Amino acid sequence: MQALKERIQREGKNLGGGILKVDGFINHQVDPLLMDACGHEFALRFKNVGATKILTAEISGIAPALTTALHMGLPVVYARKHKPITMPDQVFLTLSPSHTKGRTVELIISPEYLGHSERVLIIDDFLATGATIQGLVRLAQTAGASIVGIGALIEKTFEGGRNALAYLGVPIESLVSITAMEGDEIIFLECG
Amino acid sequence: MQALKERIQREGKNLGGGILKVDGFINHQVDPLLMDACGHEFALRFKNVGATKILTAEISGIAPALTTALHMGLPVVYARKHKPITMPDQVFLTLSPSHTKGRTVELIISPEYLGHSERVLIIDDFLATGATIQGLVRLAQTAGASIVGIGALIEKTFEGGRNALAYLGVPIESLVSITAMEGDEIIFLECG
Repeated sequence: MQALKERIQREGKNLGGGILKVDGFINHQVDPLLMDACGHEFALRFKNVGATKILTAEISGIAPALTTALHMGLPVVYARKHKPITMPDQVFLTLSPSHTKGRTVELIISPEYLGHSERVLIIDDFLATGATIQGLVRLAQTAGASIVGIGALIEKTFEGGRNALAYLGVPIESLVSITAMEGDEIIFLECG
Repeated sequence: MQALKERIQREGKNLGGGILKVDGFINHQVDPLLMDACGHEFALRFKNVGATKILTAEISGIAPALTTALHMGLPVVYARKHKPITMPDQVFLTLSPSHTKGRTVELIISPEYLGHSERVLIIDDFLATGATIQGLVRLAQTAGASIVGIGALIEKTFEGGRNALAYLGVPIESLVSITAMEGDEIIFLECG
């Protein structure tokens, strides 16, 4: 998606170690109009998958998942990383290694909001190794729900997440694909 | 706001100890159309305050802040509770007691996204004791920014947050006001 790609070119920073800083418009400050355009694009790309619910992980997945949900008219569930006191004792919980935190985090969903008949579209900010998204997949599958699609704002193709998720046999859409991050450069897929 | 009030009446749960569970449409699963309507309402109520930026706290403030930002065409910054590796070493940081967590949490904002000329509108899910919002106020004031308004989806008037924030002399708007939570009842302000 051209608007997102241009914004990354203009404001994104390669911090080294595969870390892309997009704090000015996605991860700390959010540009709502850009996020809305991304949500609109996801809604177009996934209009035929028959999704009944959008699933994401707090924190940075919330903005793109919410704008996608707005355009698709679907509820969105964000997996929590800490169990709030409002959640029942019995939950779906999985562990997921966090690339940017250097440790394992919990992903928790209440069975109240993820049932076995749901058709789940996963939306997140990044598709890198795919570890977080695989955690969401495990939660959805444990609930008996089916995965119907996976969308990420930014894919780092060199981290292999797409291959790791291919076994699901569902459409995987990223709005911008980055093929390499060398020195302080960010290399985009030409057609991405 | 009638739509939000009716949703709380239908699906909200008084868990005791002043805890209102709204996990089905705000805090875990989000109803995007309801959040969009709330954002539209905030945009109307704050259209004349001259805001240049919307400020909230992760996690549950993100959805209403984002939809408000969409309707106002303003960027939104969400204060982080853990410093990500993409954030510079020098940050604005304050401590805030968390009502629902029973402990103190950090609220962190990068100086990159909150400058001294900003006119900040704070949007959050709850106004209870006002502790989280006071933390956001301290961060904004440390940055040299001015606060121009405070909006919350749900105010628990019996926890005194409005009085604690009155010294700021800015408009404080809540879309639904709850005056008491006794037994398993939720008592709404008649005009709220």
